[in-house]
Amino acid sequence: MSLIEPRTLKGFRDYLPETMIPRERLMETARGVYRSFGFSPIDTPALEYAEILVGKGGEESDKQLYRFTDHGGRDVALRFDLTVPLARFVAQYHHELGLPFKRYHIAPVWRGENTQRGRYREFVQCDFDTIGVESVTADIEAVLVVHELFRALGFERFQIRVNNRKLLNGLLASLDLEQRSAPILRVLDKLPKVGAVKVEEELIASVGLDSARAKAVIAIAAIQGSNAQILAALEPMAHGERGQQGLADLRAVLEGARAAGVPEACLELDPSIARGLDYYTGTIFETFLGDLPGIGSVCSGGRYDNLAQLFTKERLPGIGGSLGLDRLLAAMEELKLLPSARTPVRVLLAYFDAQHLCDYLRLAARLRGAGIGVEFYPEPKKLGAQLKYADRRGFDCALILGGNEWAAGVCQLKDLRSGATRELKIAGPHGELSSELVAALKG
Amino acid sequence: MSLIEPRTLKGFRDYLPETMIPRERLMETARGVYRSFGFSPIDTPALEYAEILVGKGGEESDKQLYRFTDHGGRDVALRFDLTVPLARFVAQYHHELGLPFKRYHIAPVWRGENTQRGRYREFVQCDFDTIGVESVTADIEAVLVVHELFRALGFERFQIRVNNRKLLNGLLASLDLEQRSAPILRVLDKLPKVGAVKVEEELIASVGLDSARAKAVIAIAAIQGSNAQILAALEPMAHGERGQQGLADLRAVLEGARAAGVPEACLELDPSIARGLDYYTGTIFETFLGDLPGIGSVCSGGRYDNLAQLFTKERLPGIGGSLGLDRLLAAMEELKLLPSARTPVRVLLAYFDAQHLCDYLRLAARLRGAGIGVEFYPEPKKLGAQLKYADRRGFDCALILGGNEWAAGVCQLKDLRSGATRELKIAGPHGELSSELVAALKG
Repeated sequence: MSLIEPRTLKGFRDYLPETMIPRERLMETARGVYRSFGFSPIDTPALEYAEILVGKGGEESDKQLYRFTDHGGRDVALRFDLTVPLARFVAQYHHELGLPFKRYHIAPVWRGENTQRGRYREFVQCDFDTIGVESVTADIEAVLVVHELFRALGFERFQIRVNNRKLLNGLLASLDLEQRSAPILRVLDKLPKVGAVKVEEELIASVGLDSARAKAVIAIAAIQGSNAQILAALEPMAHGERGQQGLADLRAVLEGARAAGVPEACLELDPSIARGLDYYTGTIFETFLGDLPGIGSVCSGGRYDNLAQLFTKERLPGIGGSLGLDRLLAAMEELKLLPSARTPVRVLLAYFDAQHLCDYLRLAARLRGAGIGVEFYPEPKKLGAQLKYADRRGFDCALILGGNEWAAGVCQLKDLRSGATRELKIAGPHGELSSELVAALKG
Repeated sequence: MSLIEPRTLKGFRDYLPETMIPRERLMETARGVYRSFGFSPIDTPALEYAEILVGKGGEESDKQLYRFTDHGGRDVALRFDLTVPLARFVAQYHHELGLPFKRYHIAPVWRGENTQRGRYREFVQCDFDTIGVESVTADIEAVLVVHELFRALGFERFQIRVNNRKLLNGLLASLDLEQRSAPILRVLDKLPKVGAVKVEEELIASVGLDSARAKAVIAIAAIQGSNAQILAALEPMAHGERGQQGLADLRAVLEGARAAGVPEACLELDPSIARGLDYYTGTIFETFLGDLPGIGSVCSGGRYDNLAQLFTKERLPGIGGSLGLDRLLAAMEELKLLPSARTPVRVLLAYFDAQHLCDYLRLAARLRGAGIGVEFYPEPKKLGAQLKYADRRGFDCALILGGNEWAAGVCQLKDLRSGATRELKIAGPHGELSSELVAALKG
C-alpha cells in the first residue's frame, strides 16, 4: 500500500502546541474582555446559502468565496467574514434578541485570496458589535473595549486611531466634494500603504479630482498634533450640520475614553483614517502596534447606519470592531512575544517505580484537585529520558518519587531551569497536601 | 430592492446567547480538564485535500463529505472528524512534536448526513489523544480524563462503560470465532439500539454464525454484576495470551481509576461495549448520562495500534476519546440543565443622567478593574425601559445612580429577583471602591 503524503492546502496552516497555546490564550483574553462589557457570544454556521454572502463584500470578496453545490443541490459557500452572518442573524432573530443587542463572535472565516506574509486563506476573526444603538455612548464603549483588549493582551505600546465619517464628509463638503465621498475615502484609505503621491495621482485619475482639490484632501489627512490641536484645526473646516455632528461625536469619544482611563498616547485622532468599506457612517477606528506598525491595523471597525438592510426592513444601526487575531498572533511571533512552552502545565510527575503506579495516580489526582495541573509521564522509563522529555516540552519542574520517597512520604522537586533539587513533604499535619508542596508547584 | 430571506441551511443551526453561553462554558471546562492532565491544544484547517479524508471513515462517511474543487482546481473537502486530521498531523510533524504527544482539539466538523434529533451537519468535537504510548497507564488516564470531564461539567450521575478489544477477541476465540471478530463486533455494537433479537438475527444472517454461537456471543455481552463479578465470570472464557492480556489491562484500568478516586458507580465493566470502528485494538469505552441514557454515548474512545499508517511508516499507537459536545448540549437543553441568562455578566449599570456620562464610564471601568463585569446601558432612556431590558436579559441586579446619588457618593443596588433596593457607598475610606459594593456585586 502506498502512503498518502501528509500535507496541508496552500494558504492553510496547522497550529502546533507552541503556537496554539498562545492562540487559545488570545481568544480567552478577548472573550474575557468582551464579556466584561456585557457582550454575549453567538455562533453561526460556517456554511451559508451563497445568496446570503454573494455581493456583500464587493467583487474581490465574491471571487475569493469558497462556493460549491452541496448534496441537496444547494448553492452554498463558506463565510468570508463574521459581519454578513451577523446581519443575517439579527435580521432573522431581532424580535427574539431584543435591542440593544451586544454580541461577540470568535470563529474562522475563509477567503481564497493570494497568500502573503501573515495572511492565510483560513483565519480567525474576533468581532464585537452593539446593534440597535444610535447613541455615541456605544462608540465610546467600542474604543474602551479595544483599549482594554490590547491592555489585557499585554501590549503597552499601541495606538487606536479614531476618525469620523460624518466629519470627513463635512470636510469634503467644504471642498465641494461631498458627492464623491465614497470613492475618495476608498482611495484615501490606501494612504499609509502607498503614500501621498500615489493617492493624489489616483484621486485625479480615478475619482476625477483636480490637482488643487486632491492636494487639499491629502492636506486634511496630513494634519498632525495633539488631539486638541487637530480638533481645533478641523473645527473651521467641518462643513454643515453633519460635519459638526461628526466633530461633536469625536469630542465625546475622546472625552469619554479619557474619563474611563484611556491615556491620550493610546487614542489618537487621525484625520487620515478613512476605512475602505462604504457602509461606515460615523466613528471609525484602526489599531496599530507601537512595535510593529508595518503589519497594519490589527483591530478595526466603526459605526454603520443600517447593518441588515439586505435582509430586513427594520433599520438596525450599530457599531463594532474586529480583532485580527491570527494577524496579531503572527505579529507576536515576529516580535518574539510568544512563550516557548509546548505544555499547558508547569509540572511533570515522573514515573519511576511501577510498583507504585496507584500512588502516582492518586498523587496526581490530589494535585489536580488542588488546582495544580500536572502531566504524569505514562511509562516507567529511565529518569534521564523523562527529564529530557520535560526539558524539550518546557516544563518548569519535575516531581520525582521512587520507593524511598514513597516510604518516607516525601518527593524530590527538580527545578528544570536551575537544575536544583529540593526535598518536600507530601502531606501536611492533617493528611492534606503540604502547603510547601502546593506553594512550590503553583510557582 | 427585494429582500433576501435570512435563513440557515438545513441541518445547520445558529447559537443564540442563551445556548452559546453554556456552550462556551462546556468548551472552557473541557479545555481546563484536558490541560490539567498535560494535553496541549492544536488546530488544523477545516479544509483538507480530499485524498487525506476519503476512505478513512468508511463508505457512509465518504458519501457525507462536503467535497468540492477549489479556486486552484484542487479536490478538497471539509473534515468529517478530528481523528483523520490528527493522523495526518502526527505523520507530518512527529519528529518535531516528540513522543509521547498528548493533544486536545476542539473544533467543528461537517457531515452531510440525514438530520435527526440533536444531530446536525455541523457540530463541535472535543477530542483528546495520547500518541506514542503502549503502556496501560495512558488507558487509565483516558478514563480519568473522562471522569473528571463530567464531574467538572456538573454531572453527578454518569457511567463510563469500559471494555477491551483484546478481551473480546479472546472471548470470541473461545467460541472459535476470532477470524470473524471485526464483523461480529460491528453488529454487537448495535445491541443497545436494536436489542438482542435483532443482533442475533444479524449475526446469523450477515456474519454467518450458527444460532448456538450467536446466542453465546450475546450471552457474553449480557453478563452483568459488579466489576469484580464480571471479571470473575470472564476469566475462564478469555482465551489465549491476547484474551488474558485484555483482562489484565481491564483490571489495571479499573484498579488505577479507583486509586485516583473514580467511584465504581461511575466506571462499569460492560462486556457489551464493542465500538463500531475497526481500528480499536485494546481498551474501549463509552459514556452515558444517568438521567438521559437514551441519547446514547456522549463520550467515546479507545486504544488503537497504528493511528497514521496511511500517512507514515512510523508506528504510532495511542488512545483517545471524543466528547460529543453539541450532543451533550442538546441533552442538557432537554434536561433543563442550562441556565436561562442571556448575558455573560450579573450587573447592569443603568444610564440615568446624561450630565454624568463620564462618571458612569469611570465607575464601570473601576468595577471591571475590580473583576466585576458590568454592562452599561448605552442610552439615557427611562429607567423603566432599562429595567425591563435587564429583566429580559436575566441580569441579577441593576446599579442605579442619578444626580442625587452622584452628589452623595452612593448608589442604589436593585436586586432584580426580589425587587429589593439598598443604598451602598461607592468609595471606601481611601477612595477605593467600597468593600460592601464589591462584595454585593460579586454576588
